Amino acid sequence: MKITRMHGAGGKVMQDLIKNTILGNLENTSVNGGIGLKDLDDGATIPIGDKEIVFTVDGHTVNPIFFPGGDIGRLSVCGTINDLSVMGAEPLALSLSIVLPEGFDIDELDKIMKSINEACKEAGAPIITGDTKVSNVDDIVISSAGVGIVDRGKAIRDSGMKEGDVIIVSGNIGEHGMAILLSREGFEFETNLKSDVAPLNNLIKNVLDAGVDIHAMKDPTRGGLADSLNEMAEKSGLGINIYEEKIPISDEVQSIADALGIDPMTVANEGKVVMAVKKEDAEKALKVLRRHPLGKNAQIIGEVVSEHNRVIMETIVGKRIVDTPIGDPIPRVC
Amino acid sequence: MKITRMHGAGGKVMQDLIKNTILGNLENTSVNGGIGLKDLDDGATIPIGDKEIVFTVDGHTVNPIFFPGGDIGRLSVCGTINDLSVMGAEPLALSLSIVLPEGFDIDELDKIMKSINEACKEAGAPIITGDTKVSNVDDIVISSAGVGIVDRGKAIRDSGMKEGDVIIVSGNIGEHGMAILLSREGFEFETNLKSDVAPLNNLIKNVLDAGVDIHAMKDPTRGGLADSLNEMAEKSGLGINIYEEKIPISDEVQSIADALGIDPMTVANEGKVVMAVKKEDAEKALKVLRRHPLGKNAQIIGEVVSEHNRVIMETIVGKRIVDTPIGDPIPRVC
Ligand SMILES: Nc1ncnc2c1ncn2[C@@H]1O[C@H](COP(=O)(O)OP(=O)(O)OP(=O)(O)O)[C@@H](O)[C@H]1O
Ligand SMILES: Nc1ncnc2c1ncn2[C@@H]1O[C@H](COP(=O)(O)OP(=O)(O)OP(=O)(O)O)[C@@H](O)[C@H]1O
Ligand SMILES: [Mg+2]
Ligand SMILES: [Mg+2]
Ligand SMILES: [Mg+2]
Ligand SMILES: [Mg+2]
Ligand SMILES: [Mg+2]
Ligand SMILES: [Mg+2]
Repeated sequence: MKITRMHGAGGKVMQDLIKNTILGNLENTSVNGGIGLKDLDDGATIPIGDKEIVFTVDGHTVNPIFFPGGDIGRLSVCGTINDLSVMGAEPLALSLSIVLPEGFDIDELDKIMKSINEACKEAGAPIITGDTKVSNVDDIVISSAGVGIVDRGKAIRDSGMKEGDVIIVSGNIGEHGMAILLSREGFEFETNLKSDVAPLNNLIKNVLDAGVDIHAMKDPTRGGLADSLNEMAEKSGLGINIYEEKIPISDEVQSIADALGIDPMTVANEGKVVMAVKKEDAEKALKVLRRHPLGKNAQIIGEVVSEHNRVIMETIVGKRIVDTPIGDPIPRVC
Repeated sequence: MKITRMHGAGGKVMQDLIKNTILGNLENTSVNGGIGLKDLDDGATIPIGDKEIVFTVDGHTVNPIFFPGGDIGRLSVCGTINDLSVMGAEPLALSLSIVLPEGFDIDELDKIMKSINEACKEAGAPIITGDTKVSNVDDIVISSAGVGIVDRGKAIRDSGMKEGDVIIVSGNIGEHGMAILLSREGFEFETNLKSDVAPLNNLIKNVLDAGVDIHAMKDPTRGGLADSLNEMAEKSGLGINIYEEKIPISDEVQSIADALGIDPMTVANEGKVVMAVKKEDAEKALKVLRRHPLGKNAQIIGEVVSEHNRVIMETIVGKRIVDTPIGDPIPRVC
């Protein structure tokens, strides 16, 4: 069997590869009873004293490397900050592993580093270690790992939804993947669409500081909101009902998605969070989210139920099952 | 200016790129007063309570991916374990970020994962988080970050040499780079040469547990022993005198190096450590090292002096300056 684009696309094909070939070969996958690789969460934890170190990594090979709203440097920083943040952790520091092709323009690397610097400042977490290689790659590859910290036992899992919880998404979906797609050659849409790529740690901290009880949380990146909701449902053994008219989406993304026949629910976001919140806290969570520029379009989109174990969307023409995508409809989106 | 092979070769050209384009653009490079990026050590630290988290990363694009003595998976685990170990840290966990080309054989990935599993067991540190992408790379790229722990203030810097310290290397030099080179097409040497790639955490722990006062320590990877000794000299403001006849090297590596006109001092190792040890502790350190299979050829190779600030080697025909290599003589060695 050979690797295809699908194996890196964040959907079912990739999940199977990770479960079989990666997890299937590793005998030890956790430390000190922390959250380990088997949990397949956004990151893992290492309990130390009364704290847990949260550890995560993402590699980035986005094409093009500069796109409306960001670039591969900003994407790398935000991707890693956001995986730490949706674990409920305070990000502390990042690593920066770069692979460059021969002939890469050092001025472009300079622009990428300036963008990394800005994103690190926004997130309040510095790059403290790194590595640089030159090899046979078509374009720059950046892998950024992150270390964060959370009080022991307080890490937020993606499996923790409870019946009756309210599902909230922090803003308009589909903007990152769509902006990447439209910035490629061959698309002639007149658009101001930008990637939403942003660090979410401050937004999420506001919600936690307000005392909101978040039972589960993810950043809906590859595979989009459809993938994240399905993972939250699968891992909790519960179902999610969502309402199409409540899902925040710009007219622009909606009309482009319609024109291209792409389901925006499966398109990657890089500056959004989806959370399952205790029912009583939902209005408070919404208020806090909307007060922050990155959460101004936050919406309650549905609730957690025990009658089924799927993600079901109510539309004007009836109900439909929202499945885990097989892959992402847009390749090399991150 | 364009990126050349030299920018990833571990010598002076790479160091300048890192200082100018990477460090030069980052405003914040450390956390809580820990060891940061500006220190350009093997890893960085994050002080937390009475401990320091040690954090490091290496990317690997070695060619070929399977070579005598190892493969890219074993190399990734060991490279990261060793950077943690030479900081004096106990490795806790690793991340695994993989970029695969389309068409990569899943059976090969399976072999690599089995090798990763073995190396993790040897080192006693698991993979707990990771990421998988498929992109336009010629061959698999693996970036592995590592988290370790050390008592606060006890991290071992590469800058800490003191006058009179004894320089010890843990075994035969040049084996990794030479084995990689000879495994490539076009070389017709009859040889049993193998890469030395191995996790050094247990070896180093033995030395520390014996109470040896290690003032500075590095793993002499890209740029070889020449590069590591120069960095230790530069950062401490002191000089190092070494003796050619004391440097452990196999007849095989020596004769191939001679035949190819390569200085083995500049060839990468992946299972060796070089340390500057308090004079009174040198014999003890040597004894402890030699008791372990990975340290059986350990040697005292020289001492730290204040008369100059270079690395000077005494040979049978007189003294010569051992300079920081411009690059590694063998490309894509790790
Ligand atoms: N190569 C790998 N080695 C080990 N674990 C992996 C690897 N690839 C993915 N994983 C694990 O699989 C799970 C899902 O990974 P995935 O990359 O989809 O998560 P994510 O980072 O939250 O999403 P995205 O990469 O789209 O931002 C995570 O727990 C991750 O640690
Ligand atoms: N892309 C990068 N971003 C940030 N820091 C970097 C980057 N590349 C290298 N560094 C830093 O430069 C220093 C030297 O890096 P280098 O990779 O040579 O060290 P090493 O890992 O000990 O050696 P090797 O990679 O040969 O095993 C380290 O402190 C490292 O953190
Ligand atoms: Mg995530
Ligand atoms: Mg991620
Ligand atoms: Mg390195
Ligand atoms: Mg090192
Ligand atoms: Mg290294
Ligand atoms: Mg990921």
